[in-house]
Amino acid sequence: MSKKLTKRSEDYSKWYNELVVKADLAENSAVRGCMVIKPYGYAIWENMQKELDAMFKETGHENAYFPLFVPKSLFEAEEKNAEGFAKECAVVTHYRLKNNPEKEGKLMVDPKAKLEEELVVRPTSEAIIWNTYRGWIQSYRDLPLLINQWANVVRWEMRTRLFLRTAEFLWQEGHTAHATKAEALQEASKMQGVYADFAENFMAMPVVKGIKTESERFAGALDTYTIEALMQDGKALQAGTSHFLGQNFAEAFDVKFTNKEGKQEHVWATSWGVSTRLIGGLIMTHSDDLGLVLPPKLAPIQVVIVPIYKSQEQLDTLSEKAMQLVKAFKSKGVSVKFDNRTTHKPGWKFAEYEMKGVPLRIALGPRDLENGTLELARRDTLEKEVVAQEAIEARVLELLEEIQEQLFQKAKAYRDDHITKVDDFKTFQEVLDRKGGFVLAHWDGTEETEDQIKEQTKATIRCIAIDAPEEEGKCVFSGKPSQKRVLFAKAY
Amino acid sequence: MSKKLTKRSEDYSKWYNELVVKADLAENSAVRGCMVIKPYGYAIWENMQKELDAMFKETGHENAYFPLFVPKSLFEAEEKNAEGFAKECAVVTHYRLKNNPEKEGKLMVDPKAKLEEELVVRPTSEAIIWNTYRGWIQSYRDLPLLINQWANVVRWEMRTRLFLRTAEFLWQEGHTAHATKAEALQEASKMQGVYADFAENFMAMPVVKGIKTESERFAGALDTYTIEALMQDGKALQAGTSHFLGQNFAEAFDVKFTNKEGKQEHVWATSWGVSTRLIGGLIMTHSDDLGLVLPPKLAPIQVVIVPIYKSQEQLDTLSEKAMQLVKAFKSKGVSVKFDNRTTHKPGWKFAEYEMKGVPLRIALGPRDLENGTLELARRDTLEKEVVAQEAIEARVLELLEEIQEQLFQKAKAYRDDHITKVDDFKTFQEVLDRKGGFVLAHWDGTEETEDQIKEQTKATIRCIAIDAPEEEGKCVFSGKPSQKRVLFAKAY
Repeated sequence: MSKKLTKRSEDYSKWYNELVVKADLAENSAVRGCMVIKPYGYAIWENMQKELDAMFKETGHENAYFPLFVPKSLFEAEEKNAEGFAKECAVVTHYRLKNNPEKEGKLMVDPKAKLEEELVVRPTSEAIIWNTYRGWIQSYRDLPLLINQWANVVRWEMRTRLFLRTAEFLWQEGHTAHATKAEALQEASKMQGVYADFAENFMAMPVVKGIKTESERFAGALDTYTIEALMQDGKALQAGTSHFLGQNFAEAFDVKFTNKEGKQEHVWATSWGVSTRLIGGLIMTHSDDLGLVLPPKLAPIQVVIVPIYKSQEQLDTLSEKAMQLVKAFKSKGVSVKFDNRTTHKPGWKFAEYEMKGVPLRIALGPRDLENGTLELARRDTLEKEVVAQEAIEARVLELLEEIQEQLFQKAKAYRDDHITKVDDFKTFQEVLDRKGGFVLAHWDGTEETEDQIKEQTKATIRCIAIDAPEEEGKCVFSGKPSQKRVLFAKAY
Repeated sequence: MSKKLTKRSEDYSKWYNELVVKADLAENSAVRGCMVIKPYGYAIWENMQKELDAMFKETGHENAYFPLFVPKSLFEAEEKNAEGFAKECAVVTHYRLKNNPEKEGKLMVDPKAKLEEELVVRPTSEAIIWNTYRGWIQSYRDLPLLINQWANVVRWEMRTRLFLRTAEFLWQEGHTAHATKAEALQEASKMQGVYADFAENFMAMPVVKGIKTESERFAGALDTYTIEALMQDGKALQAGTSHFLGQNFAEAFDVKFTNKEGKQEHVWATSWGVSTRLIGGLIMTHSDDLGLVLPPKLAPIQVVIVPIYKSQEQLDTLSEKAMQLVKAFKSKGVSVKFDNRTTHKPGWKFAEYEMKGVPLRIALGPRDLENGTLELARRDTLEKEVVAQEAIEARVLELLEEIQEQLFQKAKAYRDDHITKVDDFKTFQEVLDRKGGFVLAHWDGTEETEDQIKEQTKATIRCIAIDAPEEEGKCVFSGKPSQKRVLFAKAY
């Protein structure tokens, strides 16, 4: 397979698909719509998990684990949620295979091992978790209950793409229970803030914090808070959502608590999640035609050292110096790899680490040893500089911070440049077709208008930004009065 | 629910079931045989994961993620493996639910959404992984391939017990590929060593490293290396296994590599795993009639501080001191909790943390403030001592190490005391019935004898210890010649 990527300007979608495979992040599996996350891609997920998990724990949440399967009778208890997911549920109906009497060495489902009640493979865990919470919550003393789960979920999507939309994906789902509506609203909003913080400060991916319209809400939620990012092709990506579920699940599963006055009340709920989809967002925010570009805070390898040598003797001498560098970087918490493979040439290695988005590359040759120098190359700008060996640690630490910051600023400049204020529908369509990005326009608040705009332009309301100012105006489509602009975009 | 446990001497099994629930570790769910792992139980699992994951990475392994589902045609490809797991497979047959026209608000499986090929929910991942490895391995340069996966698996067990045997459980499964038989054997043995190291040095649970007999091997393996522990009721627990799979999976999935001489060969394989079952082993190795006893290295809370007060004013003063202690402990890497809840009395809290196995408890009252002292209590021995405040950090660190070591020594003394050398079948039966534990006896090497002993005594051969010396003898059952003693026991 050629290591060259299709250019983004030629075919963005093809570029993405090729990049995911060529950078060794993931690949399609033998199971329709399910991916294999390869070690390099999984290492990014591990870095994401580590940071998010620490943030959840700092905000008082604990991890737990609930069953993969949801009995159908529980699944259907909260009707809106069930309706929202019913069409994409993988269903377990049998619990045994047996030898196929007609084909030797082959197996078949044993018809005698049919389950009395079918089991849904969780597409999300509200049902099984709220059924459990009934036993955990009696009194206001048991609240708030702040739980998170790291798990796999299955949604039988018809059109799948690696990381962005897969039948099985990995995620975390927070499920919290509160004594009051105000507290639950505060929690949902707080977790949106945690997600935005993570997206911007670790992924270097700017996001808009907003609220979903009714038609874009999570099935069963009263409000969905979202963070929306913008990809390089002008399409938006919903990167994380946090839901205020009201008392819907508490009512469906009869979860009540005795309040301080001794009265029984239904509990208030939130749920919130981000998934391996974030890796798709990370890729599409920063990468270029040469391959992946990773922000240093999430890069599995932050610095790679490549030796330039002609003889084994040279390699041995260089290796000694390289191992000193490895040790020095590690002691500073920098993740570093010394690629001393003799099976590949330096040029091949350079291209490989460019494809894999390693933020900094050090080339080390015999002349560097003589001169006490090193060649340092940045992945994001492709700039090279010669650095004195005694200055390398400080320079690397400085550059890692600088790259992290500049990736964010670059992505933010692009995003800000792609929020276009529009006041008539013709311009609305033109902007979507020619420029892409978010269109900031007035909307009359009706689902009819939302639907018609979607039908005519494929753009949806990504969110009503939390900081959107009150502003008198007219709906860009219907001309009816509106008090706020909302953000439209075509989306992943 | 009463917080008192059934005594171990009365009913060990009941004691275990009660303890798991009362210590807030796990509970049964609405799904037959599946458990909910509660935050306190999950925190133990997280500590186990963290240590094991570091050990896997130190030995060169990387994490990845493979699909939950295995298409039936792949599942059956390696026949012995398929045969071994066929009877306990959850099978997905449909991918959609629809409204039930006969019952409003209810759902039913949509018969139109039947899968062309059924999907097995992974009971273990050799099949899906080796099918993937075919694309990853071409040359000896691609070997060894050292991959681990943290995942959930499903085995439809008929008799389940929390942690010890559940229909769904969490585990890690390593799957490695090697160029030579010798390398694969070395890997399988190395990972057995890693498991033994973890069991003894973190769980404080002594284990015997051994090899399984053919009838006790993993389905599809040529050899299974095991670590076997002994529980307080004299029953053995298989705590982790590492399998030498030969070329079975490489042949079944056609995974070949070009060796250095340019010839095509099948790859050699290993797989190895430990699961949430370890938590069951941890509980049964150390705990007592008052509740859980946890080794400090895996305890979610190592030290709990309980204030003894009569007025809010007293509590405020104590809290100030307690928060200083919390800060000091945290800076030393000690996990500490200050339980300042006013809803529960100190006596209730003492019992609670005894039940939860927190290794050290500090009681802090007004008199302690006057005297500059603290009361420190050990969970394992229940001993109390008064410690000067300025000496508390050093004493806590010292005791945490001491407890870790003493728990291991105590468990080892019990285990060593329950390995009984036996040379005739009558004594064999008596030891199993009256004393329990491992019986070290000669065996003639035949499956017939193994089966008959199992039938008559319920004991199985747990393993042939790796360090078992050559010794001429006669089979304890058949009288036929034998060269080695093996370890028999009744087992979980």
